[in-house]
Amino acid sequence: MDHAANGQPTDGPAVDEAQEADEGSPVSRALEGIREEVAALSDGRVADYIPELAHADPDTFGIAAVSAHGRSYCVGDAEHAFTLQSISKPFVYAVAVEELGLDAVHGHVGAEPSGEPFNAISLDERGRPENPMINAGAIVTTSLVRGTEGRFEHIRSVLSDFAGRRLSVDEDVYRSEAETGHRNRALGYLSLAGGVLVGPVEEAVQDYFRQCALSVTVRDLAVMAATLSVGGVNPVTGRRVVSQRTARHALSVMASCGMYDRAGEWGLRVGIPAKSGVSGGILAAAPGAFGLGVFSPPLDEAGNSVRGVAALERLSDDYDLHMLRTPAEPPSPMHSVTRAGGTLDVRLRGEIDFLAAEQVVSRLAEAIDDARVTSVSVALERVSGLSDAARSLLAAELTELADAGVDATVSDPRGVRRA
Amino acid sequence: MDHAANGQPTDGPAVDEAQEADEGSPVSRALEGIREEVAALSDGRVADYIPELAHADPDTFGIAAVSAHGRSYCVGDAEHAFTLQSISKPFVYAVAVEELGLDAVHGHVGAEPSGEPFNAISLDERGRPENPMINAGAIVTTSLVRGTEGRFEHIRSVLSDFAGRRLSVDEDVYRSEAETGHRNRALGYLSLAGGVLVGPVEEAVQDYFRQCALSVTVRDLAVMAATLSVGGVNPVTGRRVVSQRTARHALSVMASCGMYDRAGEWGLRVGIPAKSGVSGGILAAAPGAFGLGVFSPPLDEAGNSVRGVAALERLSDDYDLHMLRTPAEPPSPMHSVTRAGGTLDVRLRGEIDFLAAEQVVSRLAEAIDDARVTSVSVALERVSGLSDAARSLLAAELTELADAGVDATVSDPRGVRRA
Amino acid sequence: MDHAANGQPTDGPAVDEAQEADEGSPVSRALEGIREEVAALSDGRVADYIPELAHADPDTFGIAAVSAHGRSYCVGDAEHAFTLQSISKPFVYAVAVEELGLDAVHGHVGAEPSGEPFNAISLDERGRPENPMINAGAIVTTSLVRGTEGRFEHIRSVLSDFAGRRLSVDEDVYRSEAETGHRNRALGYLSLAGGVLVGPVEEAVQDYFRQCALSVTVRDLAVMAATLSVGGVNPVTGRRVVSQRTARHALSVMASCGMYDRAGEWGLRVGIPAKSGVSGGILAAAPGAFGLGVFSPPLDEAGNSVRGVAALERLSDDYDLHMLRTPAEPPSPMHSVTRAGGTLDVRLRGEIDFLAAEQVVSRLAEAIDDARVTSVSVALERVSGLSDAARSLLAAELTELADAGVDATVSDPRGVRRA
Amino acid sequence: MDHAANGQPTDGPAVDEAQEADEGSPVSRALEGIREEVAALSDGRVADYIPELAHADPDTFGIAAVSAHGRSYCVGDAEHAFTLQSISKPFVYAVAVEELGLDAVHGHVGAEPSGEPFNAISLDERGRPENPMINAGAIVTTSLVRGTEGRFEHIRSVLSDFAGRRLSVDEDVYRSEAETGHRNRALGYLSLAGGVLVGPVEEAVQDYFRQCALSVTVRDLAVMAATLSVGGVNPVTGRRVVSQRTARHALSVMASCGMYDRAGEWGLRVGIPAKSGVSGGILAAAPGAFGLGVFSPPLDEAGNSVRGVAALERLSDDYDLHMLRTPAEPPSPMHSVTRAGGTLDVRLRGEIDFLAAEQVVSRLAEAIDDARVTSVSVALERVSGLSDAARSLLAAELTELADAGVDATVSDPRGVRRA
Repeated sequence: MDHAANGQPTDGPAVDEAQEADEGSPVSRALEGIREEVAALSDGRVADYIPELAHADPDTFGIAAVSAHGRSYCVGDAEHAFTLQSISKPFVYAVAVEELGLDAVHGHVGAEPSGEPFNAISLDERGRPENPMINAGAIVTTSLVRGTEGRFEHIRSVLSDFAGRRLSVDEDVYRSEAETGHRNRALGYLSLAGGVLVGPVEEAVQDYFRQCALSVTVRDLAVMAATLSVGGVNPVTGRRVVSQRTARHALSVMASCGMYDRAGEWGLRVGIPAKSGVSGGILAAAPGAFGLGVFSPPLDEAGNSVRGVAALERLSDDYDLHMLRTPAEPPSPMHSVTRAGGTLDVRLRGEIDFLAAEQVVSRLAEAIDDARVTSVSVALERVSGLSDAARSLLAAELTELADAGVDATVSDPRGVRRA
Repeated sequence: MDHAANGQPTDGPAVDEAQEADEGSPVSRALEGIREEVAALSDGRVADYIPELAHADPDTFGIAAVSAHGRSYCVGDAEHAFTLQSISKPFVYAVAVEELGLDAVHGHVGAEPSGEPFNAISLDERGRPENPMINAGAIVTTSLVRGTEGRFEHIRSVLSDFAGRRLSVDEDVYRSEAETGHRNRALGYLSLAGGVLVGPVEEAVQDYFRQCALSVTVRDLAVMAATLSVGGVNPVTGRRVVSQRTARHALSVMASCGMYDRAGEWGLRVGIPAKSGVSGGILAAAPGAFGLGVFSPPLDEAGNSVRGVAALERLSDDYDLHMLRTPAEPPSPMHSVTRAGGTLDVRLRGEIDFLAAEQVVSRLAEAIDDARVTSVSVALERVSGLSDAARSLLAAELTELADAGVDATVSDPRGVRRA
Repeated sequence: MDHAANGQPTDGPAVDEAQEADEGSPVSRALEGIREEVAALSDGRVADYIPELAHADPDTFGIAAVSAHGRSYCVGDAEHAFTLQSISKPFVYAVAVEELGLDAVHGHVGAEPSGEPFNAISLDERGRPENPMINAGAIVTTSLVRGTEGRFEHIRSVLSDFAGRRLSVDEDVYRSEAETGHRNRALGYLSLAGGVLVGPVEEAVQDYFRQCALSVTVRDLAVMAATLSVGGVNPVTGRRVVSQRTARHALSVMASCGMYDRAGEWGLRVGIPAKSGVSGGILAAAPGAFGLGVFSPPLDEAGNSVRGVAALERLSDDYDLHMLRTPAEPPSPMHSVTRAGGTLDVRLRGEIDFLAAEQVVSRLAEAIDDARVTSVSVALERVSGLSDAARSLLAAELTELADAGVDATVSDPRGVRRA
Repeated sequence: MDHAANGQPTDGPAVDEAQEADEGSPVSRALEGIREEVAALSDGRVADYIPELAHADPDTFGIAAVSAHGRSYCVGDAEHAFTLQSISKPFVYAVAVEELGLDAVHGHVGAEPSGEPFNAISLDERGRPENPMINAGAIVTTSLVRGTEGRFEHIRSVLSDFAGRRLSVDEDVYRSEAETGHRNRALGYLSLAGGVLVGPVEEAVQDYFRQCALSVTVRDLAVMAATLSVGGVNPVTGRRVVSQRTARHALSVMASCGMYDRAGEWGLRVGIPAKSGVSGGILAAAPGAFGLGVFSPPLDEAGNSVRGVAALERLSDDYDLHMLRTPAEPPSPMHSVTRAGGTLDVRLRGEIDFLAAEQVVSRLAEAIDDARVTSVSVALERVSGLSDAARSLLAAELTELADAGVDATVSDPRGVRRA
């Protein structure tokens, strides 16, 4: 499947089909194995600081995975609805960055892990909340969003595109939070006093409560995550939601600030950009690979779902998803290298980034010293993308070859798009 | 090149050859372009808190890059020697993790970014320094190392393996630090009082001062970084230095705690696990791609080299090195899929991880519904690695096919090794 | 003068008379000497965080002192009106303690110096603002006051009694603060979330802004301070405003938390319970001695009036006002001790506290061993007060004398009241 | 009794006599009543962080009081020996201030309550420990002392003078502390790095451990406290130990920083400058009144003796010792005022400070308006002290009278000394 926003029909199945399609797959069975093992954990406590959340059934437990190609796998209580809570934060951050640009957003909110709880009240030396993943920073981020259809409708609309279906607000949870969320009001006034929150505090706080109360399933989480994983295009619907760069920024902020004050431990043990919420959900997005969603209400002391953390640690190991894993060998960009007579025929494939180009250039340079080679042919038919830096590097090497008297040609019948 | 620890000679060139090989390469010219642009920056201040460091020439500026395949590119003051300082920390951490295991090390030192300066004096709720990248945590980490040849000799030996040449101590800097490093002694006694430092404080502190005073060039930094980038094998010498997992742990700690209190900003703008030192060096390791080293003494307020940060931001963009970049399309694990008569012939290639296996399995599953297909042949000749999870998934699908009456065979003439 | 709340007219002169009385006194001339010397200081900056305060003339400078006997001395810009700001805090604290009792008030607000700025946002481990002298604690304290005539009218009424004249709100300053005081709203919501603020935040904050905007002169400050100094009775009007114990509590909180984060330095150099405000006023109350008021807008880094601090340091030295000064010799409680024949005649005087009683008892005990003494006569005519503990101790000694066969009588024609 | 250092024999009894003298006194019986009541408290935990302290018997409980006139009263386990620990701090601070002066000492250590535990590791913005009552500040203070006979001998000598007997070191406690006190070594190195500790860290720390290990009884504590209470002269031995001003400084620091992080609560409930130690002792010095010592090992969470705090709260109430209590009426400085013919005869008494002089001046001023008065006679026979400011004020008023044609004479046969 090609999930680029090229307007072509994709082979990504519609949502319902996709779900049925994976029943009985060995992928689902592997996922079910993890779920059963982790279900045995009985630690943790259901959050009660928003009264409405205290009613959650501690035994509910579901896991979902959506691949970069849009295939989805769900096990356990996959259809159980719960509220996004803090999981909304990276997505509203993406909305703001998409609308205002990275620098404008970070004029109002920092980007550093705070080493403090999610509801911490410290501002940095510039008067900004430490980062957009703590409550103060999230409220400020929400206040930045404009949108033409009204702020919250815009937020709901984009988050729905991330999920591939229209999301709605759980009114009971929203009201419960609106009535008791005085600390969040305090954070709002503090940010207003610091000159970083935009507009009336109560409006920003209300929209923040609403985004936290959006109702989702673990499958929604996995699709939302997968949309970040593949660079901003929903791999199920094929629709571009945010730019590739915005998606990377959201992943970066999740990587450094997404798991409250456990960023370092998470990086060592799991290594997937993630965001958890007090309702018991965790969303994790492995770049270029899988989007994941887990839901289980009992939380550990840091406020992360106990079973969610355990499941993602297992998933990271079993699914090879750590963002810093080092491949035994980087994939070769050369589909084939053959010499026929005086012609060296090099066929490239896949994504050609700088590292790949460096490999190609290094190989081509040998031709200069090889008396048998008088011409070089580089074929791009199998190349799916070519970065600017790679393109420049290849061009420079071809000039080099020409200067050395080696005839060089490039065949690019499809016109390779930029990566 | 195969840089696995198989004891075979590799095609990685010897150090000297490698260095000569890259002269005049378009890769070096691209690097030189970045160096010239960044050299114009004149902000920052040379560190003076270790008296000997204050003598550094603020105009010295060099950059080096070593690819995952062991080719190196150096520009500027590439042969200028300076001391490792804090850049020694992730490597001594790797030494300790390799020797004691991850859990044992983290019984003595935390893993969370502290949000505080490098010489901060806070311990976490368990009495441990916050992480191994702040001074207190690094001193504790050094105190954990045993080695048979004496602690510091062991540290020097392993760090020399990372660099691919024997490193020596700059005695002037060492003495300067030993005479004035009372704050580090304080951190040592604090950690001893907290029950996490092992052995006499003065010995640990002396060895820490020595590791900080090891003398290197930017090329050394790039080789050391590249060794982490490719999973623990020095890509120039071909020698395994630490395990793949230990390398990943070192990268993880660098990612979350390596750039002092700028981890988040660094993640957004650069996204390469890195470690800086007050002497003006920065080492950065892009997993599976490049090891990088930069040296320029003037520091910003966070204690990071001004030109080093700028150069790495440029390198991240131009060399496509952000660890969370999302490929436009993940590389396909299928070299070719052809049907001849009733036989579906699937040739796989490269690293087969879970995501790749999921793609293959998904394709094979279609055969069950395709009446024309009566047998399936999967060829692994071109596969460079196969993860356990991928292997299980493929095996399960083959069983599935057999149950559906489709004849399935796998050809693996070379015996694919585990990824 | 007897300033007890006995409803009788006192010999304290009315306000206007008092003021005229001191013109030309050597006390005023001494005060003027201090003022002239201190006026030479030109450091500091006029506060501008409440826009309306930024208009203050930095050269305005006045000092006032009111003795425990109600005589007042004013020099410089004694009639210049300014707003109370934080100086209102100990008085509203006194209002709350008088109304609810000490324990009830401190269920909502702590009593410890915070070591942080006046607008700090930290709450203690019980969710309470650190003390009633920081903004958060003062807003909570205001929220606790009930009063029958409406909260703010009650506060204004009691503070007017402290000053001995009806105080009114500076509406411009009030509005300026109400429009920009978002940080104070944040502190209010934080305290509401912590469960310690009572009632709607906006109402408490508005009343707090009003109390801060009450308009006073340095003479008002001195009278307010003197009222605390003499134990709760306004020494000019003779009216009891709060109980002796409440006055002591207000002085205690001023002593530990009144000078922002300079409590210790203030204690060493000045040693008079005091409270400063950002408008440039400082009020200081030396127990049993003088109430003092100073006004000069330029502030030091801690937010205290530069000339105010200097003037009070001089006043403390010159007027012998340090609360911990040690008398060369404690005043003797014995007006006279004479023996005529077998009778020891002991005439007491002044306040008889436990220390005084101990001296008397110690002297009487000698009579038991003195064969010449057969009877003891203790006269209380000159005694102005007798504490419970002193009374018990004397009674016990008289019993002792009787047991030893010494005849003991006490003459107390006026019926000494309890201290 | 006159305890000034005038070389005259005083009526203060020698130590042993004093102790016997008070047996059976009603003062002792009152003290015993408090002891019995408080002994019922069974909360708290014996400190164990210095191993040797953990052996203390939790039931040991003694109280001692020494009056400003040198009479002492002891109840309970008054002869039980324990170590000073932190109670040594204000006395070594007094030694340093006496030797170097206030400003020099505070160039090395701050004066502000830290709001942190006694073993906190923060330094203030100038690199100084927050105050001399936390461990870091106390170690720095010790490092400042020089003395001619060797530092520790000098400290021991002066502290012995405070106690009125030669104090010796409990070697077991000293060794226990020296072996385990690594955190204190850390504080020492930190202060050395900050540029405020003088000389080798280990020497300062050893002397600090020794001063903490000086062995005392509650009676010693009470005598030491009384010496501060009366301005630096030991009221039992009659010997001046430190200047009146140094004594006031020590009391000031105790008032603001003596009770760990309970300074504010202590000020409200007790109001006597005090210092507690982890061994279970508390020393309290009520200016001009009593020195108090209590010992009972079980500590509350703040590290203060549970029974010690309760006893001192009772003592403050029963003995009228709160430093901010306001006398119902300040003692009149006029022994008598009589008019005989045209002469106004004014006989003063006691300490004449500025407030007293203001009263006298105010009374004399009436003479100017009283046509019947043609001459004024002021008698100082009964005056025990006259402050400089009071002297100036009286002189100015006498000039005023002379200018108004009233003949004024002062009789001062003894030559009143300065207060």
